[in-house]
Amino acid sequence: MEKFKIGITHGDINGVGYELILKTFQMEEMATLCTPIIYGSPKIATYHRKAINSQTNFNVVESVDMVKENIVNMVNCFGEEEQKIELGQATENAGQAALVALQRAMQDLAEGKIDALVTAPVNNSTIKTEEGEAFGGHTSYIENVTGNSNKALKMFVCGNLRVAFVTDNIPVSQIAGQINKDIIVEKLVVLHNTLKRDFFIDNPRIAVLSLNPHACGVEEEEILKPVIDELFKRGVRCVGPYPADKFFGSQNHTHFDATLAMYYEQGAIAFKALTQNDGVNYTAGLPVIRTAPAIGTNYEAAGKDITDEQAMRQAIYVAIDTARNRIKFDQERQNPLQKQYFEKRDDSYKLKLDQTDDEE
Amino acid sequence: MEKFKIGITHGDINGVGYELILKTFQMEEMATLCTPIIYGSPKIATYHRKAINSQTNFNVVESVDMVKENIVNMVNCFGEEEQKIELGQATENAGQAALVALQRAMQDLAEGKIDALVTAPVNNSTIKTEEGEAFGGHTSYIENVTGNSNKALKMFVCGNLRVAFVTDNIPVSQIAGQINKDIIVEKLVVLHNTLKRDFFIDNPRIAVLSLNPHACGVEEEEILKPVIDELFKRGVRCVGPYPADKFFGSQNHTHFDATLAMYYEQGAIAFKALTQNDGVNYTAGLPVIRTAPAIGTNYEAAGKDITDEQAMRQAIYVAIDTARNRIKFDQERQNPLQKQYFEKRDDSYKLKLDQTDDEE
Repeated sequence: MEKFKIGITHGDINGVGYELILKTFQMEEMATLCTPIIYGSPKIATYHRKAINSQTNFNVVESVDMVKENIVNMVNCFGEEEQKIELGQATENAGQAALVALQRAMQDLAEGKIDALVTAPVNNSTIKTEEGEAFGGHTSYIENVTGNSNKALKMFVCGNLRVAFVTDNIPVSQIAGQINKDIIVEKLVVLHNTLKRDFFIDNPRIAVLSLNPHACGVEEEEILKPVIDELFKRGVRCVGPYPADKFFGSQNHTHFDATLAMYYEQGAIAFKALTQNDGVNYTAGLPVIRTAPAIGTNYEAAGKDITDEQAMRQAIYVAIDTARNRIKFDQERQNPLQKQYFEKRDDSYKLKLDQTDDEE
Repeated sequence: MEKFKIGITHGDINGVGYELILKTFQMEEMATLCTPIIYGSPKIATYHRKAINSQTNFNVVESVDMVKENIVNMVNCFGEEEQKIELGQATENAGQAALVALQRAMQDLAEGKIDALVTAPVNNSTIKTEEGEAFGGHTSYIENVTGNSNKALKMFVCGNLRVAFVTDNIPVSQIAGQINKDIIVEKLVVLHNTLKRDFFIDNPRIAVLSLNPHACGVEEEEILKPVIDELFKRGVRCVGPYPADKFFGSQNHTHFDATLAMYYEQGAIAFKALTQNDGVNYTAGLPVIRTAPAIGTNYEAAGKDITDEQAMRQAIYVAIDTARNRIKFDQERQNPLQKQYFEKRDDSYKLKLDQTDDEE
């Protein structure tokens, strides 16, 4: 199997993006696990390399068609153009530079010239899209560009801890109003299919968190319990709703392949408290694969060589693994009449989830 | 100094309450650190002792006036009356038995016959108060009975990790509506005074979490930031608002003496994920001292000898420590003109917090 081409955007040039990239590829094996392709600028890279005294070098190319294996490639998205770097500052220029690299990478991703996209952190508030609109974050941007009307599902991943979110970065005052049966069904089905195809877990177990403390509220009775029952009957092995504090406090998450949180902080607080710096942001539900280190631009740490690059390395690993899993999953199902695999943890014939796939 | 008398209610008799108590006092030193007084029933204790094969014995007395030192006392709240025990079941009878013990202990607490109260877990939904009303939890019950119009502040404590809650067990749909300037000021001032007097921390540092993800919402701009600024000027060393996921993920909480969460799960998820089974529920802001293990009735584990009693032990330690700290704090301030102590971490004379106390 040919090595996967993993595109990596440089993110906010005033933040820790380049530091994450430079330190990740300081480890030479990283360029042998996949063919890495940075979407950025050699000049900006040189600036950051000096700032943190890094030895990482790039094979600079003008287009993805010219990349080589076993070396870190960089697609120069800026030609000879100079970019103003102001470490630690939120500037429109840095937002623009992040968007240029992202657009270039998205084009190659959509055309299948790269197998997966890993994004370094950006500051949404400094980015204006070509239509002059506010940038709603990588997840929704990629959903719009490549979604084909599929809905993205945001997940955080660290080893076997996988947390998915029903609602994302919305004010607390709007959370309850957005929880309804349709969205829970949608997110559970996407999560179920993602665990099977992207993470290659047959018959995955999903824990559903309650919306309200101690799981005693109208939303639990009228929305969550009926939906969980219904989907379980349809072959999605979901259980709950669990009160989130007790769930994570008793390590109950270790018994599940994924946990569905009702709102961002419910899942993110537990995830970050439990994983510290190793988290990966995974965009599920789309035809393309996109991962990211689950950290922000960290302006206050920019250029200081104090940021742990482990999350970026993990984001690249997850991108490679999920790209491989999708191929393996699809190959095994090319001729369903000649079934040659066995499902792990398969309780009964009724639970065969191929049946569910047909229904969706 | 005489040993503190610590009252301990037996909680829900179908849950893990007796197991927590029996296992805690299996360690003989526990009865020498304080004078423990269980509010319960010798017959129920015998039932649970057999269930988990415990060797713990009690000095059964009819009233708190008869307790002895260096031994575990039990005030028999039920005479010869039999109580029906149904392990693992939520029954009205168990709720009633929990309330009888709580009322008896509260009376002794209000009369100063015990120095602090530790409560074993109850199931709020099985308890009806004498007025036939629903039981809103220990915290609000104790606030009503002994508060003297003081407002209770719920806190979780584990070592130096202290999390306090602006709002408690309310539906997510109601959280934003309850966040206003008055309640933030009230909770911050109570927290500040609690850290000083109950935890004996001079000039304590308080982190305030944001309500919304990434701290960008109207409540941050219009309520939290102005209140934090105003209180800081008045001598309460509070900082924020911090987005909760990043705050706990970067271990930022270790730099503060306490963290103020806007809603229950925001603080509880992080606290329980970080501390597992050792958490203590502390009721701050009232004339009386009350602590509890930060765990529930755990019906599914009742009578099985699988529950870790560490949280109960910690709850007793915190009760003893805070009772001692309050006396020490008050003694040192009996004659403020003859100041004989020095404040730790005191940046400037302006920050002397006695001035704040006068203003409240």
